[in-house]
Amino acid sequence: MSIQSFQAPQRTLMGPGPSDVSSRVLLAMAKPTIGHLDPAFVGMMESLKELLQYAMQTKNALTLPISGPGSTGMEACFVNLIEPGNKVIICENGVFGGRMKENVIRCGGEPIMVSDEWGQAVDPNKVEAALQAHPDAKALAFVHAETSTGAQSDAQLLCSLAQKAGVLSIVDAVTSLGGTPLKVDEWGVDAVYSGSQKCLSCVPGLSPVSFSECAQGVIKGRSTKVQSWFLDMNLVMGYWGSGTKRAYHHTAPINSLYALHESLVMLQEEGLENSWARHAQHHQALRAGLEAMGLRFIVPEAARLPQLNSVTVPDGIDEAAVRKRLLNDYQLEIGAGLGPLAGKIWRIGLMGYAANKKNVLFCLNSLESVLIDLGTPLSGGAAVKAALAEYSE
Amino acid sequence: MSIQSFQAPQRTLMGPGPSDVSSRVLLAMAKPTIGHLDPAFVGMMESLKELLQYAMQTKNALTLPISGPGSTGMEACFVNLIEPGNKVIICENGVFGGRMKENVIRCGGEPIMVSDEWGQAVDPNKVEAALQAHPDAKALAFVHAETSTGAQSDAQLLCSLAQKAGVLSIVDAVTSLGGTPLKVDEWGVDAVYSGSQKCLSCVPGLSPVSFSECAQGVIKGRSTKVQSWFLDMNLVMGYWGSGTKRAYHHTAPINSLYALHESLVMLQEEGLENSWARHAQHHQALRAGLEAMGLRFIVPEAARLPQLNSVTVPDGIDEAAVRKRLLNDYQLEIGAGLGPLAGKIWRIGLMGYAANKKNVLFCLNSLESVLIDLGTPLSGGAAVKAALAEYSE
Repeated sequence: MSIQSFQAPQRTLMGPGPSDVSSRVLLAMAKPTIGHLDPAFVGMMESLKELLQYAMQTKNALTLPISGPGSTGMEACFVNLIEPGNKVIICENGVFGGRMKENVIRCGGEPIMVSDEWGQAVDPNKVEAALQAHPDAKALAFVHAETSTGAQSDAQLLCSLAQKAGVLSIVDAVTSLGGTPLKVDEWGVDAVYSGSQKCLSCVPGLSPVSFSECAQGVIKGRSTKVQSWFLDMNLVMGYWGSGTKRAYHHTAPINSLYALHESLVMLQEEGLENSWARHAQHHQALRAGLEAMGLRFIVPEAARLPQLNSVTVPDGIDEAAVRKRLLNDYQLEIGAGLGPLAGKIWRIGLMGYAANKKNVLFCLNSLESVLIDLGTPLSGGAAVKAALAEYSE
Repeated sequence: MSIQSFQAPQRTLMGPGPSDVSSRVLLAMAKPTIGHLDPAFVGMMESLKELLQYAMQTKNALTLPISGPGSTGMEACFVNLIEPGNKVIICENGVFGGRMKENVIRCGGEPIMVSDEWGQAVDPNKVEAALQAHPDAKALAFVHAETSTGAQSDAQLLCSLAQKAGVLSIVDAVTSLGGTPLKVDEWGVDAVYSGSQKCLSCVPGLSPVSFSECAQGVIKGRSTKVQSWFLDMNLVMGYWGSGTKRAYHHTAPINSLYALHESLVMLQEEGLENSWARHAQHHQALRAGLEAMGLRFIVPEAARLPQLNSVTVPDGIDEAAVRKRLLNDYQLEIGAGLGPLAGKIWRIGLMGYAANKKNVLFCLNSLESVLIDLGTPLSGGAAVKAALAEYSE
């Protein structure tokens, strides 16, 4: 047996995430590892919390990155807030509502499903009806930005319905954080989780979470132990809490946290509003180009996420063959459809660092070339021309 | 608010982990991020599994890194193998036996504790008695190399007792993997977990695990769902299983996995037996130097881990002040005692890449200088001299 060092190819990542990571973030991650109780590291943790509070627009003290991917952030919210027998109203309009349901079941809770078609936003009327029908529900959980479809739901409105009904709100902001407005305090979000590898353009493997005062009270007042030792926020806070005295809980993923810190410093430098505007601007150019190729968006305009563009595959085209050509000939990754949308759509990401003019033009040009090659009747250059027209407006 | 990029200091890490990471591993981690379903990445995953099988000396197909720190590997073993009502015999001779107990309780299982003094190996006679007293136990769980004390238990013997009694063996090999012999197949280990940041000298944040055929059968035959969605091996295998078709489960921590791959390539280049011998050699030199300073090991020689050296703090010395001086004046990290050993011992790690002559001499010289400075009656140079004598034998 003799396995060689891995040589990673240089791709352009325009799928549903991970997104392109800047060299600043990659180099931050390559800095020397230090101890998880080193005073220098503890200082970095404090900055990191502050940067996350800014990104999430919250003053919640319990704001920190879970040492695992987005799925651990989701699980952290459910295992800490839900106890056996608790009812949770879950909105399902894509993959991640289904994952929430699995989490609630595994906590011994009772999921009450509110379903909308994949590609649509969550319907607030259905949510209101479910809250009325289940006055004993403990929480309302929904996905702000559905990565599997590209649909954005009205998180502010949904959280206000939860508050009116006196239930906790649990929000999946994996794909929204940094790309579209997310205002945790203003909207009254009780628990929110995100991922490092989407619009923050950090490496995958970390999940920022935040819990409101009210949610913290619920966690402290539980009558049963949190079923996960690793995700028990009562224990995690012994390490991430304030002050210089930190109790060892688990060994933090030091270098990945360097990377998250750097990606958040970059977000702070750009400014949150500027980042949202940049995502919107490049989305408009990409949209114009995709439409010029005759590709149709599956999400109605009002609910469309700028950072995740789901478009239908033209009739007669083998979508997997197109993605394979893009990857092999252009080193460009775009995403496939999931579940009922498998084989029917492409998901083109414009997340964080990857949301730039070069990527938009490169993606349009590459996709158009491949489609023409496969016999689609398009006139070359139309897509890029449409995008450029959008940029010059 | 204006937070700057974090500048990590360059430390020498000789605590209980993380250990020093080589620049090869740091640079591997800084390679461009690619997608978690990219064929190039899937190929890397296959190599990684093979490298882990070599490091753990196993042919188990279910051998992979969990996308979280060592604690998630521990939790993965318990939540997958233990169901409510199951009895688990747990050996406790340090911090991590206590953590196992917490895991079993949170799974609804019943922990049967077998206790030994901190600093001692697990007593096989007590384990045999517990197995006889509890013929209905489902598993025996113990820590191979206790990071909190530096004691190694006879994993081979303990696993053979488990096999004789017809119960599963669950082994914590966080600090042993790569540093001292661990032979999963030969010893008949059913479930084992480790950490990336100890003797593999990778960055923290990943937990290699391996499950025997028998353990896999137990997982497949459960009557209840695994309580953690994230750690459910039935789902994880859809992504890590063999073949080119991988089902998305969670987004893998791409860059951290590059780092683990590179650290395992380095282990393969050195050879597992050579790595074990290197740890033993440098331990002997460090031991000679520490004893020349009058410091005493708390672990009896036969059970002493070469990679974690726990020695008593001299009378009248403020141990925290010594560690602070070492960190500030020498950029050297050594570890403190935990639990009943807090304030009484230092834990000096010689793990992976950090187990080298330069570190041994540097550590001895620095510690001796600080102790002399604090008024300990030592003749400068004695420690290094004793270590050098050991090297020249």
